[in-house]
Amino acid sequence: MLPLPFDLLQKATDFLQVFYEENDLQDLSQRVGQVQDEISATGSYTLTEEELIYGAKIAWRNSNRCIGRLFWKSLKVRDRRAISRAEDIFSDLMEHLDFATNGGKIRSTVSIYPAANSESGEIRILNKQLIRYAGYCLPNGNVVGDPDSVDFTRLCQDLGWESEGTAFDILPVVIQVSDEDPKWFSIPEEKVLRVPISHPEYAWLESMQIQWYAIPVISDMRLEIGGLSFTCAPFNGWYMLTEIAVRNLADAQRYNLLPQLAEKMGLDTKHPRTLWKDKALVVLQEAVLYSFQEKGVAIVDHHSASEQFLEFCNIEQSKGRTVQAEWSWIVPPTAGSTMGVFHRDWGNEILSPNFFYQEHHWQ
Amino acid sequence: MLPLPFDLLQKATDFLQVFYEENDLQDLSQRVGQVQDEISATGSYTLTEEELIYGAKIAWRNSNRCIGRLFWKSLKVRDRRAISRAEDIFSDLMEHLDFATNGGKIRSTVSIYPAANSESGEIRILNKQLIRYAGYCLPNGNVVGDPDSVDFTRLCQDLGWESEGTAFDILPVVIQVSDEDPKWFSIPEEKVLRVPISHPEYAWLESMQIQWYAIPVISDMRLEIGGLSFTCAPFNGWYMLTEIAVRNLADAQRYNLLPQLAEKMGLDTKHPRTLWKDKALVVLQEAVLYSFQEKGVAIVDHHSASEQFLEFCNIEQSKGRTVQAEWSWIVPPTAGSTMGVFHRDWGNEILSPNFFYQEHHWQ
Ligand code: HEM
Ligand code: HEM
Repeated sequence: MLPLPFDLLQKATDFLQVFYEENDLQDLSQRVGQVQDEISATGSYTLTEEELIYGAKIAWRNSNRCIGRLFWKSLKVRDRRAISRAEDIFSDLMEHLDFATNGGKIRSTVSIYPAANSESGEIRILNKQLIRYAGYCLPNGNVVGDPDSVDFTRLCQDLGWESEGTAFDILPVVIQVSDEDPKWFSIPEEKVLRVPISHPEYAWLESMQIQWYAIPVISDMRLEIGGLSFTCAPFNGWYMLTEIAVRNLADAQRYNLLPQLAEKMGLDTKHPRTLWKDKALVVLQEAVLYSFQEKGVAIVDHHSASEQFLEFCNIEQSKGRTVQAEWSWIVPPTAGSTMGVFHRDWGNEILSPNFFYQEHHWQ
Repeated sequence: MLPLPFDLLQKATDFLQVFYEENDLQDLSQRVGQVQDEISATGSYTLTEEELIYGAKIAWRNSNRCIGRLFWKSLKVRDRRAISRAEDIFSDLMEHLDFATNGGKIRSTVSIYPAANSESGEIRILNKQLIRYAGYCLPNGNVVGDPDSVDFTRLCQDLGWESEGTAFDILPVVIQVSDEDPKWFSIPEEKVLRVPISHPEYAWLESMQIQWYAIPVISDMRLEIGGLSFTCAPFNGWYMLTEIAVRNLADAQRYNLLPQLAEKMGLDTKHPRTLWKDKALVVLQEAVLYSFQEKGVAIVDHHSASEQFLEFCNIEQSKGRTVQAEWSWIVPPTAGSTMGVFHRDWGNEILSPNFFYQEHHWQ
């Protein structure tokens, strides 16, 4: 849904005000007048590159669920508003992967493709993340791969994608431009940094052949800046340990590895009183952390992330801004109470610029 | 603040309606008429024993922060509305301890003393829990005992209480009746079931001389039933493991034992990346669980408690009632995402009957 011109002007003005103020710029009213004229003439307007870059940074700063926001100013913003063919977007996304992966020294990066527009429609990446593993539902109901990807994997197969059916097949990128048919593109293996998981002490863990990828690039959220909607604006940071070790690999509805791990550890899994989940969880965390470090891939543990977030809160406060945050997302999913963030709370107002969920057309 | 008669009648009626309906009783209107007459004549009214008992059970069922609610129907309700002298309340509380502790087979119990009343005022237990350890602030700023008890301990000392100054001194019970001076009473050692903490494998843990008490009796909340305020209505269940092992003994602002434990375990505590807190936390949990079991004291692990709470939710739904719950309290403070409750949410409306915080007069 595109905003009405009046709404758009209001949102543009709100954003420009913040942009001018935080950057000590003059002549706000002149710029607002320009935008007003542009909206009157065309129904929309175009952000300058500086506005776009700063707006994307604020969107990160305003992400209530993100514990990684201390580094919002260092976001790398790739202005790709001139690219609009699916093929060109895909090859540019491969450059995003190279640039952001950076051999493991991950750079927080967002690539911004053309804003939604009443004439040209909107551009969408249908994947949740650029790199993610496929999931296959077997006739017996078991799943090979990532159960969270089962529906999307079926879509890819319907589009003609073929795969090896392993637990760690990288899904193709599916891009839809306006009302064209969605197009899929295989990611060349050399674009994907994979981290095989092993444990410093337990050799058997390596034989489980677990792996994860280096870089989470969320690709299905809408970036809103000054009332404009960038429906295709994939962004990445580096991983926080628990996202991989406590959620993706451990959730019962994801890779569900705790029972296998506990068995290898010789724990009795018949009763929760043996704390087998708690023990297996720590081993999995150790393994993931160790493996990322061994491979030279940036990752932050939840304790450090919590400290960094509290530092972010302090800085924001010192700037006269009130941090908005969603407690249940900020507090890491394990050992919560050992971290400072557990003992705090915040307002949870949704500010703009920000990243928003958008409906998946294909579901 | 006592409710105005009109308000009171409304609340009484609401409660009686629920009581009559859930128990398939007849003649609600007759009982409401009676209560109306009583309120008109005296400004307040008296619950029957059956109403009181059932009301207390609903109060538990309505406790949004409590994960233990599956067992709400089995609450033992001690109707002690006839006891109002501080000395008599204290000796009755000692009976509560005996009855509820039950040699370790803990019985969920509430003792209900007279309701607040515009003539006789209100009765208060000033302690947070009947059994709790004192905390002493040393001149160097360190704390011996439970840092959360420092202020209250000072109050007890001001009242004349003397102690040994160990890390595990049981505080006296301080009772205030109406506007009399608060009176303090030492709990005889034989009323307190203590659980020394040891570990099935690590002998050094026993030498740390950690202990906890068997039974948490919350003593400073107001029980509200049908608009009446029972300001002195201490209640207990059994412990959930994480309350002791993850919060009371581990929180940095409580006994803060993780650094010591990690040191004994030979872990590097200089960087959070060694996951020393996560590892020490598991050992502490094992130790507390093992020690309670060895001593024959009831305790529930967080995984089982989560399952039980989800069963409670199912039963409530089948009765046509909507569970209200506070996610951030229900989800245990560690290994959250391994439990079903993490992946659910609930409304958080506050229903009555219920337990409420009340201001501490002494602070
Ligand atoms: C630099 C390292 C970063 C770390 C360690 C980090 C950490 C996290 C974590 C742990 C979550 C919760 C994820 C979940 O539970 O599913 C999250 C959510 C989020 N982060 Fe970050 N983040 C980082 C960078 C970024 C960047 C660069 C952006 C955008 C420019 C961003 C925007 C968001 C948003 C929008 C969410 C919410 C996602 C949703 O609602 O599904 N983060 N982040
Ligand atoms: C039978 C075993 C029980 C278990 C395992 C249990 C478990 C818990 C837990 C883990 C909490 C959170 C405590 C915290 O984080 O500080 C809690 C809170 C609470 N429980 Fe239960 N509970 C039990 C029995 C009871 C009973 C018998 C009552 C009342 C009749 C009750 C009423 C409450 C209330 C009112 C709170 C909130 C306390 C506050 O706001 O500070 N619980 N319970």
